[in-house]
Parts: sequence; structure tokens; C-alpha cells
Amino acid sequence: MEALDYHAEERRKAEFDVEEMKIVWAGSRHAYEVSDRVARIVASDPVFQKDNRTMLSRKDLFKDTLKKAAHAWKRIIELRLSEEEATELRFFVDQPAYTDLHWGMFVPAIKGQGTEEQQKKWLPMAYKMQIIGCYAQTELGHGSNVQGLETTATFDPQTDEFIIHSPTLTSSKWWPGGLGKVSTHAVVYARLITDGQDYGVHGFIVQLRSLDDHLPLPGITVGDIGMKFGSGAYNSMDNGLLRFDHVQIPRDQMLMRLSQVTREGKYMPSDVPRQLVYGTMVYVRQTIVSDASSALSKAVCIATRYSAIRRQFGSQNGGPETQVINYKTQQNRLFPLLASAYAFRFVGEWLKWLYTDVTERLQANDFSTLPEAHACTAGLKSITTTATADAIEECRKLCGGHGYLSSSGLPELFAVYVPACTYEGDNVVLLLQVARFLMKTVSQLGSGKKPVGTTAYMGRAEHLMQCSCDVQRAEDWLNPSVIVEAFEARALRMSVACAQSLSKFSNPEEGFAELSPNLVEAAVAHCQLIVVSKFIEKLQQDIPGKGVKRQLEILCNVYALYLVHKHLGDFVSTGSITPKQGALANEQLRSLYSQVRPNAIALVDAFNYTDHFLSSILGRYDGNVYAKLYEAAWKDPLNDSVVPDGYHDYVKPLLRQQLITARL
Amino acid sequence: MEALDYHAEERRKAEFDVEEMKIVWAGSRHAYEVSDRVARIVASDPVFQKDNRTMLSRKDLFKDTLKKAAHAWKRIIELRLSEEEATELRFFVDQPAYTDLHWGMFVPAIKGQGTEEQQKKWLPMAYKMQIIGCYAQTELGHGSNVQGLETTATFDPQTDEFIIHSPTLTSSKWWPGGLGKVSTHAVVYARLITDGQDYGVHGFIVQLRSLDDHLPLPGITVGDIGMKFGSGAYNSMDNGLLRFDHVQIPRDQMLMRLSQVTREGKYMPSDVPRQLVYGTMVYVRQTIVSDASSALSKAVCIATRYSAIRRQFGSQNGGPETQVINYKTQQNRLFPLLASAYAFRFVGEWLKWLYTDVTERLQANDFSTLPEAHACTAGLKSITTTATADAIEECRKLCGGHGYLSSSGLPELFAVYVPACTYEGDNVVLLLQVARFLMKTVSQLGSGKKPVGTTAYMGRAEHLMQCSCDVQRAEDWLNPSVIVEAFEARALRMSVACAQSLSKFSNPEEGFAELSPNLVEAAVAHCQLIVVSKFIEKLQQDIPGKGVKRQLEILCNVYALYLVHKHLGDFVSTGSITPKQGALANEQLRSLYSQVRPNAIALVDAFNYTDHFLSSILGRYDGNVYAKLYEAAWKDPLNDSVVPDGYHDYVKPLLRQQLITARL
Repeated sequence: MEALDYHAEERRKAEFDVEEMKIVWAGSRHAYEVSDRVARIVASDPVFQKDNRTMLSRKDLFKDTLKKAAHAWKRIIELRLSEEEATELRFFVDQPAYTDLHWGMFVPAIKGQGTEEQQKKWLPMAYKMQIIGCYAQTELGHGSNVQGLETTATFDPQTDEFIIHSPTLTSSKWWPGGLGKVSTHAVVYARLITDGQDYGVHGFIVQLRSLDDHLPLPGITVGDIGMKFGSGAYNSMDNGLLRFDHVQIPRDQMLMRLSQVTREGKYMPSDVPRQLVYGTMVYVRQTIVSDASSALSKAVCIATRYSAIRRQFGSQNGGPETQVINYKTQQNRLFPLLASAYAFRFVGEWLKWLYTDVTERLQANDFSTLPEAHACTAGLKSITTTATADAIEECRKLCGGHGYLSSSGLPELFAVYVPACTYEGDNVVLLLQVARFLMKTVSQLGSGKKPVGTTAYMGRAEHLMQCSCDVQRAEDWLNPSVIVEAFEARALRMSVACAQSLSKFSNPEEGFAELSPNLVEAAVAHCQLIVVSKFIEKLQQDIPGKGVKRQLEILCNVYALYLVHKHLGDFVSTGSITPKQGALANEQLRSLYSQVRPNAIALVDAFNYTDHFLSSILGRYDGNVYAKLYEAAWKDPLNDSVVPDGYHDYVKPLLRQQLITARL
Repeated sequence: MEALDYHAEERRKAEFDVEEMKIVWAGSRHAYEVSDRVARIVASDPVFQKDNRTMLSRKDLFKDTLKKAAHAWKRIIELRLSEEEATELRFFVDQPAYTDLHWGMFVPAIKGQGTEEQQKKWLPMAYKMQIIGCYAQTELGHGSNVQGLETTATFDPQTDEFIIHSPTLTSSKWWPGGLGKVSTHAVVYARLITDGQDYGVHGFIVQLRSLDDHLPLPGITVGDIGMKFGSGAYNSMDNGLLRFDHVQIPRDQMLMRLSQVTREGKYMPSDVPRQLVYGTMVYVRQTIVSDASSALSKAVCIATRYSAIRRQFGSQNGGPETQVINYKTQQNRLFPLLASAYAFRFVGEWLKWLYTDVTERLQANDFSTLPEAHACTAGLKSITTTATADAIEECRKLCGGHGYLSSSGLPELFAVYVPACTYEGDNVVLLLQVARFLMKTVSQLGSGKKPVGTTAYMGRAEHLMQCSCDVQRAEDWLNPSVIVEAFEARALRMSVACAQSLSKFSNPEEGFAELSPNLVEAAVAHCQLIVVSKFIEKLQQDIPGKGVKRQLEILCNVYALYLVHKHLGDFVSTGSITPKQGALANEQLRSLYSQVRPNAIALVDAFNYTDHFLSSILGRYDGNVYAKLYEAAWKDPLNDSVVPDGYHDYVKPLLRQQLITARL
């Protein structure tokens, strides 16, 4: 018997080699093979089943997470998975858990900020999970402003110990994942005070719970901060609160790679360059961009597949109605998001290269590209996560009413994704950092100092300030150099306009504050240019497979022209393009949709997501939506009984007009 | 002892009479007094407490809803509340429940579509809640396209009954609120078939459950459709599924006001004009616009108050940090939303007037304004709900990390609000209806037929197509007539451009489909013009109270100029304003923020929301945010025990390296 496939006809229509596209999406044949194999291992394991998680109570959900985390670790050991494979396995288990912080923050913090000795002591235990750690930085009163953290670590030369203390309510650690119920240890950020002087925020390894009975150690108050957005989503995580009442830790639990405190209490910076810290930030934000493309592609996959199943209106002579994916309004909302998923994937891939490059330079004591790399990753983190959060919700709306059901997978995807706009740097704060860097770059343009990397285009300021776009017909917009120049002109002119406005202020900081909304817009323009450029650069590579490159060219154009239309005000008001050229861009964009349409299902198939990972009835590979929605409904706890709990107390007396006498 | 008020200083700064603004917001002194009194009744009643609802399991949440609904009814009777007061009470209980559908859809359907006889029979039972009804229209396979519903109602002349049947899986009723577990009756929409002919979709009153034991009647399968977006939110509602297996109902349960079936099975339209149905749609959508202003104002109230409490960066010499509400980037995101809340409030108030006007005309058989009123309400429903959904999420992000906590109130507000973008007409489908009306209006411009109501401006096409904006300085944008003309020019030119493009197609329907994304944009421009105009008209009324009118003028300008900036591409590319004028609008907008700033807290106090209704720790009236967040965290079920459930099974074996031998 042939397998059911409501999308079979759609799949036949594809004009490119989907298997080859899967490799492009994964980054390499090796990456594809690893992720494909590991995804199947997870999907076929009943312990990792997750389609019921929105129905679990907080406690049951959390217990389910502990079970999955332990099972994942067990499987990693049993299957002797490599580090790469283990990371993939946790990724596909797809349920936020304390292990994310242990592996993603605790271990890297020790690696990055611990001395060799400290690494030797702590890492083997952490690698074996004999201790479980989290990353306790954010406080109730401080997030973005890390330098304002209030927790103190005061050195006591008498005992050779630091005293960790929470002096105020707002100094309570608040948010760290894995802290609330699980972690035995934490890297705690606190103000280092020695000899009466405050040396600012430093990291300390602090044991929180007994390894015997898991009870908090003396002086430590720890708990969960409560429910968060959504059902399921991050409620599987024990984001925690933590207070210290004069907790003593040995001096050597200060992370001392960058600076140390001597036995006598003297503060000594080491000779390790502080810039190394920025290398870590580049790394973490690069993974966030990569996560953005994953989350966005999941949402787009669901919305695209369902749009091909859902039919509404347009029945001719009693025939089937029109697939909603054929409506231009649907295409106009959906296809740019599909293109964005690919765009973010490729810029994420490029960021991986950038991180490697920066790391190699740092090791050679070359810090020249660091500020640019730092600004670039900060900005890309900001625009890709903002766009992804919005896009997930747009995909949900594109699924109409059924997108509102938990079984569509989209509500939980949204709820679990949106914190990315806030953590690791609030998106607006990050854009202001980018803007600051851009203003500095503009101010140095006359000085002979050449802008590097993604700001190199600013070196051609003279040309870009006066060039004019020579698009005359819609198809002229298909020329990559036309696109890049329009984006460069827009970005540069917005930056220059800000710089000119800034120069009118006698106090530059006041000017920066006053103009910050404009600066944010200029930073967005710069970052969008990067994404567009990197997509175009990707297409200059050799990309094998029938029709694969052609599809990517179409998507690249869709992405760029969608941005031109969305930010038409920027492009036109800076004179980078004329209103007429804007209209032609839009015309070209919409005619590209017809080329995307026959390939839409295959383009989301290329993400190679299992039904387990998608966790969406609307996004099922086989398109068997309605029967499965109906089947799933009956599993809701409310359907356990025909007559609901509460009927006898609260409905019957009402119907019988006996409410006044009823005890409620 | 003076009550704690962290906002006291902010409140002192206000430059207008807040008490008078409360009356403006409420619509009248009477409306203010009713809502104030009823809100307090609800807030002080322990049964209506709702701060724990995101922690309840689905079953417990549903039971809690039944309890609240019964208690509300009991209080309505005990307090002898008027219909207006009862509606307010249910509004402030603020938990989606079957009663919303009973009162909001079931009763109105019988009133609007039932004959006098049918009303006499059914309404008294419904008014006393001896029966509970819902509105069963949407099916698994059909939402927007009501005419495509598949459920059949076949007349059987032998028994003088209709046979209600679900012929396919996709014909299952799906989504109706109150259906899943509670309703005893439903108005069911089904294709009327008599004498072998299909007369399209009609309404029928069908009993679903026994009034004795609440069990579904023979032939009826009914249940809940499962979890939806969010924790709490609409999970308190039993949105249901329903299938009929040849269920017989008496002929007189067809709603027969507009058409009837005789004893012999003959289909007979009545002489009641079918346009009456549109009157109901105007009514329902008007309430949705009013709900938009409520939801948006709640979100804005929370974000504004918290932005005045939250401080980050900018500490000078160890003094307090800067309130985040003082940052221009925060103001640039928040204040336009505050202005939108007021804008939507006033356009909603105007729509109430429009409904009255339309109703009076209908009663006098004057249908002349109906198409315009219908298009106008459809469009306003669309743009206000879309803007509100986006704004709630933006407010959540404006609260930084803590906005992600359920206790901020914002996640639940978002989850409970977003369906408004889909129900009662998908927002994009509605805009296409508006666009169709606009295209018709444009096509008739030369014919001497004068456009009426909100399209009257199109009658000045000749002027608006060639006029130019004469703003030369930023403050010129404060002139209402300048603003209105710019919005009119933009809207008209976009409509005319669409009409011109349309005329190039030989098949108009094909053209409409092809150009639909442009048409949607033209419809948005038209609807935004309406909101701006109605705000300006409101300001032409006498508005008492020190400084009240002045504040509203500022907000009106903020709203309009925010739209100019947001849609700068439209304004500039249609030549309605120049890029320079766009920059001046933006400059003026940002200088208005300084005038909003000292009044911000008072402007949200004017909504007069109780802490119960807001249900947000971040939005507390007294601003005591941090202590209450800390207190609330400990109530999470996960904090019931220090060592979590699952530790012994899933964490301890892992820490002790005994996982391989453990049974998971």
C-alpha cells in the first residue's frame, strides 16, 4: 500500500532536486547526515514524544523534562555520540531544559573565564554531569545593564574567602534557567569588593545545593520564578530566583583568567586580553541567529504545507475550492517569510565563519576586526530574532482559526521563541550599540581609516551619497548589483543623516539619546544590507543539484525586494530609488511569487524536519490534517467525561433556576 | 498611614484633570459610574479572583469558569442588575465563558433571524438561562466561506421535520464557544434542502443535550476541540466540535424571519429585507472595535506603569538609574500605542453612533448607507484588531524580560486577544471586501453618484489627485486639516492607482486576485484615514476638564504622525507629501513625546482599571512591582517542595553516574 500523501501532487511539481537542497540547507553533506540520523533517533523514541505537553500541569511538564533530559544523556552515552551528535540530539528533543544552560552557558563560562587550573578542576565534573551548573547573571532589578548588578562578593582576608551576598530585594538573581530546581552549581556574577574597593562585576563558581540530598546549602534561598508565556514552551524550564545571605566560598572559586585577587586581597588584572570576552559574545549570538532560521523555518514549513491543504472559496461548478496558497494575499505574506528563512540560514552560516576568523585573529593578538564583528553579530542577532518572532505569529495567522489550536504547534513555537528578542541583549539596546559603531565609522571616514568587513561599503561614501539607481523595468531589479547598491545607498545615507543631525548637538550623548529612534532605523538598514549581501555572496559559490541554485536566486530576490517594499519610505526618502522604481520592485516581487509557488512545498521539505520535530498537525508531512485534528481533539482532558466536572455544582442549578439557593 | 504609591510623583506631574478624562474615556458620566461601580464589585469578590488561572490544569480552569459564570449570574440576580450592568459585570469578570456566546450570539441570532412567534417561544427561556445556547456556524473545513458550509438540513415532508446531518468529516462543526461541554441548544447553520433543491445556508435551533442529565441527544456527537494558545486565555472556553447523524428537529425550529419552508416543503422568502442581516454584522463588529480599545489600553497601561518603575543605565554618581520611560526609543514605541488606544476608543464610540443611524434607516427602509457602513465596520474591525494584537506583544517586549512572566499579565492578554484577528471575518478577507467597495466607489466617481459617509472625500478626487501638502516647518503638521488632507490624498491615490491597474485586465476578477496585495494596502490607507478623521472630529466637540482636550490633541497628533512615519513609503511615493515633509512629521512626532511624557501615567490611570481587571504585577496601580513579583513566584506549584518531583528518578542517578543502570 502506498503511503498516504496529500502533498504528492505538490511534490511532483517541484522544479529542483530536493535532496540536494537538503544538503545546502544543512550546510554540508556531513551536517545533513548527522542531523538526519539523530532526528530520526529522537523521533522514534517514545520517551521523547511531545505532542501532549501543552496539556500537562506545570509539575508534570517539569517532571517530563527531567525524564527527557536524563533519557537524552543515557542515549548519548549508550550510542557513544560525539559532541556534535549530542548537541544535535538535545536540539531535536526540542524541550527547554536545564541541560541547555549547563552545556550552553555554565561550561563555556568556565572554559572562557576560568584559569587552566580551574578548568582542570571543574570541567571534568561538568562534562560527566557529576555537577550541574547554570549561569546566574540577571537580577530582579538588572538585565541589560550588567554593570549595575547588585550582588556582592566581598573578599575576607581572614578566612581567604569571598562572601557572596544579596544586599537588596532587587539584587535577587532572577531568570537563570536550570537554577530554580536542578542546578547544583552556578557561575554567579557579583561585584567584587576587596579592601573596601568595588572592582565591578566578576564571575564566581558557587555551589548551591548539597550533592547528597539536593537541599540548598546554608545561606541560600532558591526557587522557581513561576509560569511564563504559553502552555508548554519555557514552562518546562526551572528559571530560578536566588538570594545569598553571606555565603562563603573559597577564593579560588573566583573565575580568574582575566583578573585575580591575591591571598592578601590585592586585585590584579591578568595579561590575558579582555577582548576575549567579546569573542564569546560573537559565538553565542551566532548560535542565536542559527536558532532564528530554525524557528522561522519550522513556522514557515507548517504554514506552507497547511496553505496547500486548506481550501476556501473559488469553487467552480461544484469542484474543489481554491488552495489558499494560490491566493496572492497569502503568497505575499508567506513567501517572503520562506525567503527569510533561507536568508537567515545563510547569514548564520557566514557568522560561523566569522566566529572562526575572529577566534584565529584573537589568538594572534589581532583585535582589529573585533569591534566590527561584535557590532555585526549584535545587529544580526537583533534583526533576525525580531523578524522571526513576528514571522511565527504571521504564520499562525496564515493558518486561520486552526492556527490558534495548540495542536497546530504554532502557539507553542511562538511562546518558546519570543524570549530570544530579549535575552543575550535586548534587541533595541543591541541596535543602539550597532548605531554607535556606525556613527564612529562615519566620523572616521575622512581620516583615511578604512572601514572593514561589513562596513567596507562605507568607504565608498562619495559614490553612494550621489549614485542613482538605474532600474527602468521591473526585471532590472533581478540584477544583484542593483539590489546591493540600493541597500548600500539607503544604509549609508541613513547613517550619514544621523551623523549630521548628531553634529548639531553640543553634547554628543544628549544628541545620541535624542536621535536614538532614528539611529535604530539606520542600524536596521545596515543589518538588512548584511543579510542581503551574504545571501548574494552565497549564490556566487558553486551550488550543485538540478535547479537548486535557481530556486535560491528566486528566494534571494524575493527577500531583497520584500524589504524594499516594506521599507519603501527609507529607500525613497533617501533618494536611493525613485517612487517609480519602488513600484517596479513591487511588481517584480509579485511576479516572482508565481515562480516560488510550484516549488513551495519542496522548499519546506528541504528543511528535512520530522513530524516529531515540527509537532504540528497542520504541518504534517503527509498533509492528513483534518482527520488528525479530529482525532487529537478527543485526547483533551476535558473530553475524559461526557458531562464535565462542575456540571452538577455550577450548570445544573443554573438551568433549574436554583442558583440563588445554591452554595457556590 | 498613607497608601504605598511608587507612582505618586508621576501622578503629581500630570497637567490635566484625570477624573474628567475618565469620563471622556468611558463615553459619558453615566457609563463611567456604571463601569466604575461594577468593576469594584467584581474586584472585591473572592470568587472572581483570577491571578492563579495560568497555573490551573485545563480541567480545573474550566471548572473555575463554570463557577465564575454561575456566580456572576447569581450576583446579577441578587443585585438586580440592569442589562447594561450585567454586561459590564461579565466584561469585568474577564474570563472567556460559554455565557459570552449565549448572550452575544445565541440570543441575538434568535432576535435577528427568528419570527415573532419563535422569539416568544425561545427568548424567555434563554433570558432566564433555562436553556443555554451557542452559535454553531464554522466547520472543520469552512470558516471564511460561510456559503461553503457542508452540514445539511433536509426537509422531510412525511414527518414535517428537518434532518440535520454531517455528511463529511470536514462538515463537523468546529470552534463554536460553549458548544463543547455546556450548551443545551445551538443555532446551527446548515444547507437547507427541500424537494431535492439546495437553498443555501440557513439557521436552525437544535437541542444538543438532555435537560435532565446533560447527555448528548441521540445522533449527536459533541466534545471539546482541545487546548488553544496560551495558559489560561481561551482554554477557559469549551470551544467545541459537533457531528449530526440524521438528527430530526421540528420544522418550526428553522429560523424563519427571512425565509420559510411550508408544511408542504415549499421554500418561501419572506418580505423582510435581507439587508437586515448586515445590520447585525455592523453591530457585532462595532463591539469588536470597542474590545480592541479595551485590550490595547490594558496592555498600554501595564507597559506605561512598568516603564516608569523600571530603571536601567544612566546612574550618575551612584544616584538612581534612568526610568526606562525616559528613553526616546521606549517613548517612540510606547506613546504611539497609548495614542492608538485613545484613537480606537473614539472610533469605536463613533461606530456605536453609526450602528444606531443604520438601524434607524433600515427601519425606514433606507438602505442607501448600508454598503458604506458595512465596508467601514469591516475595515475598522480589521485594522484595529491587527494593530491591537501587534501592540500587546510590543507592550510585552517593552517590559523586557519580566514581560515574559505570566504574572505580567501580558502573555495571557495576547493569547486571549489574537483570535479577534480571525473570528468574525479574517482580517485580510475583510480588507479585500473594503477594497472591492472602494473600487466600486472609484469607478462611479464620474457618474454623478456622490460617495457618502466615510468615502465622501473621494468626491473631491479632482482636488486630492493634484493637491500638494504645504508643510514647511515641523509645527505645520499640528494643523488638523493638513493631516486630514495628507491622509485623504494618500488613500485616494492608492485607490485610484489600483483602479487604473485593474482596468488593464480584461477579466476584472482575475485582475482583482492579481492585485489583491495592493488592494489590501489601499484599504488600510482608507481605514486609517477614518480613524484619524474621527479622532479629529471628536476634538471639535466640547470637552470639559482642565487640560483634557489639550492632552487629546497631543495624542491625536501622535497617532496621525506615527502613521505618517510608519507608512512613509505610501505618503511619499503617492506624492502626497515630500521626503522633507516626512522628515518634518517625524521631527514633530518626536517633540510631541516630551509633552506626553509628564502625563503618561495619568493618561493610563484615566482608563480606570482595577488591579483585578489588569491582572498584572507590572501594571499595579501602586507600582510595587519587585516585592510582588518575588511574592508571586513562591506560589508556583513547582515551589511546593524544595526538592522537585522527579529528582530521585531523573536527576540523582545522573549526578551519581548511575544512569545506565537506571530504569527510566
